[in-house]
Amino acid sequence: MSKVAFLGGGSFGTALGILLADKGVEVSIYDRDKSVVDDINLNKKNDKYIKDLVIPKNVTAFNDLDEALKDIKFLVLAVPSHVVRAASRSIKGKISSDIIIVSIAKGIEEGTNLRLSEVIEEELPNNKVVILSGPSHAEEVAFDIPTTVVVSSKDEESANIVQDLFMTNNFRVYINEDLVGVEIGGAVKNIIALAAGVCDGIGYGDNTKAALMTRGMAEIVRVGMKLGGKPETFLGLTGMGDLIVTCTSLHSRNRRAGYLIGSGKSAEEATKEVGMVVEGIKACRAFYELKEKLQVEMPITDILYRVLFENKDPKDAVVFLMGREKKSEIYY
Amino acid sequence: MSKVAFLGGGSFGTALGILLADKGVEVSIYDRDKSVVDDINLNKKNDKYIKDLVIPKNVTAFNDLDEALKDIKFLVLAVPSHVVRAASRSIKGKISSDIIIVSIAKGIEEGTNLRLSEVIEEELPNNKVVILSGPSHAEEVAFDIPTTVVVSSKDEESANIVQDLFMTNNFRVYINEDLVGVEIGGAVKNIIALAAGVCDGIGYGDNTKAALMTRGMAEIVRVGMKLGGKPETFLGLTGMGDLIVTCTSLHSRNRRAGYLIGSGKSAEEATKEVGMVVEGIKACRAFYELKEKLQVEMPITDILYRVLFENKDPKDAVVFLMGREKKSEIYY
Repeated sequence: MSKVAFLGGGSFGTALGILLADKGVEVSIYDRDKSVVDDINLNKKNDKYIKDLVIPKNVTAFNDLDEALKDIKFLVLAVPSHVVRAASRSIKGKISSDIIIVSIAKGIEEGTNLRLSEVIEEELPNNKVVILSGPSHAEEVAFDIPTTVVVSSKDEESANIVQDLFMTNNFRVYINEDLVGVEIGGAVKNIIALAAGVCDGIGYGDNTKAALMTRGMAEIVRVGMKLGGKPETFLGLTGMGDLIVTCTSLHSRNRRAGYLIGSGKSAEEATKEVGMVVEGIKACRAFYELKEKLQVEMPITDILYRVLFENKDPKDAVVFLMGREKKSEIYY
Repeated sequence: MSKVAFLGGGSFGTALGILLADKGVEVSIYDRDKSVVDDINLNKKNDKYIKDLVIPKNVTAFNDLDEALKDIKFLVLAVPSHVVRAASRSIKGKISSDIIIVSIAKGIEEGTNLRLSEVIEEELPNNKVVILSGPSHAEEVAFDIPTTVVVSSKDEESANIVQDLFMTNNFRVYINEDLVGVEIGGAVKNIIALAAGVCDGIGYGDNTKAALMTRGMAEIVRVGMKLGGKPETFLGLTGMGDLIVTCTSLHSRNRRAGYLIGSGKSAEEATKEVGMVVEGIKACRAFYELKEKLQVEMPITDILYRVLFENKDPKDAVVFLMGREKKSEIYY
């Protein structure tokens, strides 16, 4: 069986590592945090990210990148979106061109507005890149709760190989050839989830949140199509499916950060309290810029930006979204 | 101000009655249940359906249909889908042709497979009919929590009038001209919500439910388009929005019935425990039949039918749905 290295011992990386190890794959996890490495190796746990795990013995963690990369066939970038470039750069020259890179982060690069697969290709132009995305909270994947995801790649064969690598009875992997749609859907849904969390934090109801999510879905489709994605992708697992799980689950950091902001905390306070990267905040900043350039209407992103970075009162924001001109229901 | 009569003093009828009364509209509610009528008139409450209400004084309930219909300009059919024909028939000859009928039920008629607006038109061919639908739990509308809905009608002017009638700051009413889509979306989403409840009842996670809802959305779009609805309607408030609120809210009877079935109860036991009509069960039976006739793939409806009426084990059902052939992510 092929050996797989994970760059980053966070929650989703660890969950996927366990999944592969249970299939008999040899797994190495590289993490900078010595305490995480020790917890995995000595206690077969990763309490910092997910409680009550039992990590199989064929998962080994490393503090040394070169050791983690030894004899691998696949490299999974299990780092937040803003670290994808640095992580890719860190393995430049250390891996051969036949190693397939799998990326599981959701976002676009701030400043360049590049999709993450584009960022990886800039740094590692000789390797094939596959994106894995979909409604998949790590806390559930780690405990083998039925989950479906999508893999997407410019290279069909690599997508097929990665599909087979991860597929289990309870972790169904589909292929979607619309790489742009898969990546953009995953990035924008975090913005809407953050806004849905704000809605919950204010104390509004399920009706309000459902309306917000519906209009959020329209926003995803609009910007996604403008960037070249296909509408049916946004209605699938990596768009609507992921939006639902992120907006309604207790596990979602984006929703939780939004909840705290809706309850009156600042963006910084909320991020600190969540204690992990809140991708929706970064995505909001990136798409706020991008929407101007693309001339695409993103009212939720727009108003959330003002809440996050210009101290707009969240309550006024939702009232504004509700109160838009009485008109026909339009979608995109 | 125009007087409005509600046929049926259930939860959504009462909530909308309160909304109109707060706008200064004179409201009459007809209900067969004397205890409901008395509770509304004497206590200004409707404890049977929603706790802690304060019903305004310009809402009056009646046990006598003719009294309730006196001097009205609008009639709201606030009865479950399977009662829509009988309710329409009961007012035949009692109302003039300029009275607009508003229907708030979601479903299709079993046996005939007619949409509810078609049923009403068969019984009351001289009246204009408007459908009101969308993500709107009565328990939230009654307490003025921000909500958005859609009205739809063959007659544009009537839709405009009903939009103005119900519109408030916290109850935003949009117009959607796709009557078929609005009615079919509302009917099928109850099937998916029931299935989502089953998923929860078994103890599966948010990932599982999000996947089910995504595939359920595909099912709504497929059958809805076959019947002549527009895809963008299903992605709007009356499709996706309503699906989300029904699948994730604690208020939903369909989800709750599904939950009980997933926990091991029979369909009858679940219905009894929920204590109100479970539209998803009726819709599942109707669409199970219809899908054969239309030759449209509805795997969730199909398997749910077997769980509800042929004692299939819910766990096997979800496993079956998850385990379908490994293939590309297809939508419709």
